Amino acid sequence: MRVAVIGVGCTEFGELWEKSFRSIFLEAGIEALMDCGIEGKEIGAIYVGNMSGGKFIDQEHIAALIADHAGLAEFGIPAVRVENADASGGSAFRQAFMAVASGMHDIVIAAGVEKVTDSVDPMGVLSTSVDQEWERFVGANLPALYAIIARRHMHEFGTTEEDLARVAVKNHKNAVHNPKAQFRREIRVEDVLSSEVVADPLRVLDCAPLSDGASAVILANEEIARKLCDTPVFVEACTQASDYLALQCRKDLLTMKAVVKASKEAYRIAKLEPKQIDVAEVHDSFTIAEILAYEDLGFAKKGEGAKLIREGETEIGGKIPVNPSGGLKACGHAVGATGIRQIVELVLQLRGEAGKRQVDAEKALALNVGGTGATAVVTILSR
Amino acid sequence: MRVAVIGVGCTEFGELWEKSFRSIFLEAGIEALMDCGIEGKEIGAIYVGNMSGGKFIDQEHIAALIADHAGLAEFGIPAVRVENADASGGSAFRQAFMAVASGMHDIVIAAGVEKVTDSVDPMGVLSTSVDQEWERFVGANLPALYAIIARRHMHEFGTTEEDLARVAVKNHKNAVHNPKAQFRREIRVEDVLSSEVVADPLRVLDCAPLSDGASAVILANEEIARKLCDTPVFVEACTQASDYLALQCRKDLLTMKAVVKASKEAYRIAKLEPKQIDVAEVHDSFTIAEILAYEDLGFAKKGEGAKLIREGETEIGGKIPVNPSGGLKACGHAVGATGIRQIVELVLQLRGEAGKRQVDAEKALALNVGGTGATAVVTILSR
Repeated sequence: MRVAVIGVGCTEFGELWEKSFRSIFLEAGIEALMDCGIEGKEIGAIYVGNMSGGKFIDQEHIAALIADHAGLAEFGIPAVRVENADASGGSAFRQAFMAVASGMHDIVIAAGVEKVTDSVDPMGVLSTSVDQEWERFVGANLPALYAIIARRHMHEFGTTEEDLARVAVKNHKNAVHNPKAQFRREIRVEDVLSSEVVADPLRVLDCAPLSDGASAVILANEEIARKLCDTPVFVEACTQASDYLALQCRKDLLTMKAVVKASKEAYRIAKLEPKQIDVAEVHDSFTIAEILAYEDLGFAKKGEGAKLIREGETEIGGKIPVNPSGGLKACGHAVGATGIRQIVELVLQLRGEAGKRQVDAEKALALNVGGTGATAVVTILSR
Repeated sequence: MRVAVIGVGCTEFGELWEKSFRSIFLEAGIEALMDCGIEGKEIGAIYVGNMSGGKFIDQEHIAALIADHAGLAEFGIPAVRVENADASGGSAFRQAFMAVASGMHDIVIAAGVEKVTDSVDPMGVLSTSVDQEWERFVGANLPALYAIIARRHMHEFGTTEEDLARVAVKNHKNAVHNPKAQFRREIRVEDVLSSEVVADPLRVLDCAPLSDGASAVILANEEIARKLCDTPVFVEACTQASDYLALQCRKDLLTMKAVVKASKEAYRIAKLEPKQIDVAEVHDSFTIAEILAYEDLGFAKKGEGAKLIREGETEIGGKIPVNPSGGLKACGHAVGATGIRQIVELVLQLRGEAGKRQVDAEKALALNVGGTGATAVVTILSR
């Protein structure tokens, strides 16, 4: 059964100290419901992407909390939390998509939520996405592992620190026009290069920030979508793949095999080639990750990712605009909310509702990655 | 599409200090694969139930770890962790069931795993299944909330501490014959009544223990099931419902509305009445929970649950044997593994492979509950 996104909602991303976990998912959910004019009780199931409610806010049973506080427990609506590190949002979207595509439910909500900045050790929590026993306990946390990838990419393909910086510069420039973005200000390459080193060669401004935030989308089957919505955005494919969790187990540090597999499958299902994608939101948790994404999604040949950013091809107005929202880097990375936030952005782009960051697009792609690439979810949307 | 369970596996439940998280899921998974004679690479997707890898062992991205360590990341097989507190296993089973029933995958593995006893504050972690802000931060942890339910049931219906104790006694008796059970020894009513009070009126022997463990089942569509397996066990229904997370929001403390809703729906789909169920595994995280389950599943009228246990009707050989495995109380409660472990037991019962605890059964029901009842998953199986 064909599936469409008919409603989208998203909180501002950032340090939302004055708002609670339960208030932000409500804000995003209500925005999504109002966007398509349905009531909560019309929803058949709830899928929630959340990486670490347990460690961030000492709360598991996240889906039940959301069903409760959103008033949907009254109707007994089944709620499921999906966790795949920072690909939790994408995975929740995929389960919601499957629930509608299979005909099991007519209308489903997929939400993502994370309250990161209330934690005393947010970076420690984020690093639970890598192999604890084989990587982190011996000192390799998330930035350190991405630094290894970056250094190897520089060695192998001549990618430079300036190239990495350009990714951050582009994404900050895009975020200026995104009212939900955490950093709505431009930065320069020299700002990135003079920012503090986190894990050489990655600097503070190469890294996505710590962010709170929530996002929600309503999915429906085609018949209902056409009835309720003038601008349904169709899910042409939504695929997921796995790779080894620990970097040391992978044959090639510079290819995210899960991204290659998931995207190839998505292109096949959607009957599209990479060059037919008009706009993409990719997982730039670190600047090097966006360059890898160009290559692994087929926007550039392996080793030529940096060329795309150097030549401005992934800017708004370029051949394949990437992260018009500002991406994880500048829109913010509210972990479990990110995968759904990417879908929100692409739906707005495909509807022509993206304001000053509007791209002319008919086909859009989202890539949500968990940890250093052990999970990848690829979604292709079309208007 | 009709779905069958074709392979089951389970580790011993207990304090498995000499085994790691990654070794126990492998043990259960391999047992399940060998049980039906397939290879890992034939699996289309992995669903993992796990409540709190983050808090128990400082590891999120659980599904990727499992795909990796099980050698399935090599094939890129999509892996998804599902969390719904102690209903995580049941919810993972339901997602796996949906994946096959919808025709999206032919063969899927649903696993549950939890390493509880390595944690310094396991009871604190388990209590993250209740509302943190509205219940636990003000002192109401999981046993305290079940104690409120128990006290109210005693007040309202005349249920006694002896009745509660009888549930524990029965389940310990059953566990004697379960080689995977944590407590393979009988206890007496007076042992329960003289054990220490945890939260009045609940005593140590009214509470399920802290357990490590893993369990796994292989699901396949009917065609494949009949080819690979002489004794397929069919999933007649698998339903889930939600209720308010905080006890204070519920209109009736003594009815788990989610259990009533999910079971009614399951009976409707399976075209069965409660009295046609031959054997059940229910969620006796506390003895009172098993008595509520009798009532909410329709095995007894509301308020008459205690009568069933008093009259021996839920013993092996009774009208409706409940928890022949020993239940959470005596088989052990490895949280995220429990919902799948229940399915393992019922499959063995329906196949006639349950040894000395064998029940004569054609239709079986599993009830997996999250926290104090905000999530309920009901599965009906038939041979």
